Amino acid sequence: MRERGVDALLVGPSADLRYLVGYHALPLERLTLLVVPAEGDATLVAPALEAPRARSSGATDHAELATWEETDDPIALVRDLLRAAGVGADATYAVQDRLWTSFTLRLQDALLARAWLPGSSVLRDLRIAKTPDEVAALKRAGAAIDRVHEQVPALLRPGRTEHEVGRDIAERILDEHDEVNFVIVASGPNGASPHHETGSRVLEAGDAVVVDVGGTREGYCSDMTRNYTLGPADPVYRELHDVLEASQVAATEVVRPGIEAHEVDRVARRIISEAGWGPQFLHRTGHGIGVEEHEEPWIVEGNDEPLVPGMAFSVEPGIYVADRWGARIEDIVVVTEDGADRCNLLPRGLVEVDL
Amino acid sequence: MRERGVDALLVGPSADLRYLVGYHALPLERLTLLVVPAEGDATLVAPALEAPRARSSGATDHAELATWEETDDPIALVRDLLRAAGVGADATYAVQDRLWTSFTLRLQDALLARAWLPGSSVLRDLRIAKTPDEVAALKRAGAAIDRVHEQVPALLRPGRTEHEVGRDIAERILDEHDEVNFVIVASGPNGASPHHETGSRVLEAGDAVVVDVGGTREGYCSDMTRNYTLGPADPVYRELHDVLEASQVAATEVVRPGIEAHEVDRVARRIISEAGWGPQFLHRTGHGIGVEEHEEPWIVEGNDEPLVPGMAFSVEPGIYVADRWGARIEDIVVVTEDGADRCNLLPRGLVEVDL
Repeated sequence: MRERGVDALLVGPSADLRYLVGYHALPLERLTLLVVPAEGDATLVAPALEAPRARSSGATDHAELATWEETDDPIALVRDLLRAAGVGADATYAVQDRLWTSFTLRLQDALLARAWLPGSSVLRDLRIAKTPDEVAALKRAGAAIDRVHEQVPALLRPGRTEHEVGRDIAERILDEHDEVNFVIVASGPNGASPHHETGSRVLEAGDAVVVDVGGTREGYCSDMTRNYTLGPADPVYRELHDVLEASQVAATEVVRPGIEAHEVDRVARRIISEAGWGPQFLHRTGHGIGVEEHEEPWIVEGNDEPLVPGMAFSVEPGIYVADRWGARIEDIVVVTEDGADRCNLLPRGLVEVDL
Repeated sequence: MRERGVDALLVGPSADLRYLVGYHALPLERLTLLVVPAEGDATLVAPALEAPRARSSGATDHAELATWEETDDPIALVRDLLRAAGVGADATYAVQDRLWTSFTLRLQDALLARAWLPGSSVLRDLRIAKTPDEVAALKRAGAAIDRVHEQVPALLRPGRTEHEVGRDIAERILDEHDEVNFVIVASGPNGASPHHETGSRVLEAGDAVVVDVGGTREGYCSDMTRNYTLGPADPVYRELHDVLEASQVAATEVVRPGIEAHEVDRVARRIISEAGWGPQFLHRTGHGIGVEEHEEPWIVEGNDEPLVPGMAFSVEPGIYVADRWGARIEDIVVVTEDGADRCNLLPRGLVEVDL
């Protein structure tokens, strides 16, 4: 914080709060806020009715607990704590990125300040390179989602809706994780929508289906995409998938310390573009992952940050043909001292489901 | 907006966005923002890769769609849209309450403004009194969670963990809803924590168990709490529960248009206090509910806003005895022209589970 010129860090319910003090707080209308002055001890401000939850999380090993009752003003409590810590009117505050704007506007009203920065200005460098324990947790999460994808072919049958398949997959994610983060089942033309909302479409023989799923296990996220066809694949789809697989494999192989993040994107994109599908690769190649499903580093053109050991991110090129179909292959990789490890080890090829 | 002196309303992924344009957007790091100038048409700013999702939601019936590519700056796009709409440097902006602070700080950097207000300053009055269609949806959600609670006794058995029971309940919520919002299974001494995180405690014969669950159905939320004992109840717990039930019933019966919101809290609290449990009633009596699980009006001391027909909220007094047990009874009520309707119709008494 001192290096960044930040006098106090304010962290609400979020992955950051779990990361810092282990507390899975509820993101609700009652303010929970970890107040961390650059000098002195941290205090966790929490509603009194959540004090037992806060204590049992172990957060009180890292911070004093200051509770407020239903008719108290928690913003005034935060202000008093900051004053007591000597944080003055010329302070620079870093506010956790995902804190609700309604809280931030109240803090801005109550506190004189020199500047307001996003919390990531302090926290990103702590979180971006994973420790060995974190890498181990990401690998266990990766193995867990591998086991979920192994069960997907048995769930894909003509006549079932995306919803039905998605719910069965969610069950299997829960068998292997503590939480379901998301389930995308994008069948037929819905596959052309990278962030398709799993819906009521009925699967048909011959459909290509993009299945992109993730959960949280031991506090760390999984995220993995594979492509399936109900019965034998259309030759054009297979060709598209072969290009995609070559792209994903090449981009994964280029990962090593020292290269710039966007180099991974460029390698993935070049192969797809050379095959003529460039305009159909609609998104960046990947995103970091850890205690959040999406976090830094972004694997996107323009990000020239050099990769360092411990960075973990997705490599997920995709090809999307509007109104027809789509495909995306996604694995999580971790940068090592001399290359990269994959967290997902299932084959990346197209899976043709026997009907 | 004109009444409130707001020149532009900015709404990110949230229940507000669903409420306004029917779009269930992903709350992720790529900016989605509905830009609503006081004069002129609304525009939905969305990442290009989510354009199919945005279109299929029907949001484009209500707003123009403006997409941005992975290497574009969406904040600049928002600024240009506001300029084109004639929103100037002296503008007052209302920013949706739950927008991530990181986006708001970037907007504050990019836009000169007279003032920044929370979006609820514009939206609360639209949302707080439900239309007949919304009331009907809340009642269907209430009936759905009634059916879930009917199945809870069969799931409560000595030797099962809170987690196991919670997962089974989540399945049953999904049978009746589109989404699970939360599942609290608080057994034995964990019942004393109103927001207990369902955990690994093993249920024992004789335990009191607080089960507080909710989901979203057709866009509207359910939320209902009942108390169970594994086998016959301890006489002291039964006595406590009788007091609580009298409190909940009396508070429900006082609900009608024209009374101040905190009168409901006072009635609930008076009965519990007179029985000597006042200090153990740790929280306000209720919260509004609709497209969000928790929304205005807050049923809390100090809220003198008169109730009006269409307001929907929980009535949920609780009694919590640290290290021993707890109890809470919660139903949703809707203010009618001359009283209130209950959305939950299961009996409110203590349920003794036959083992």
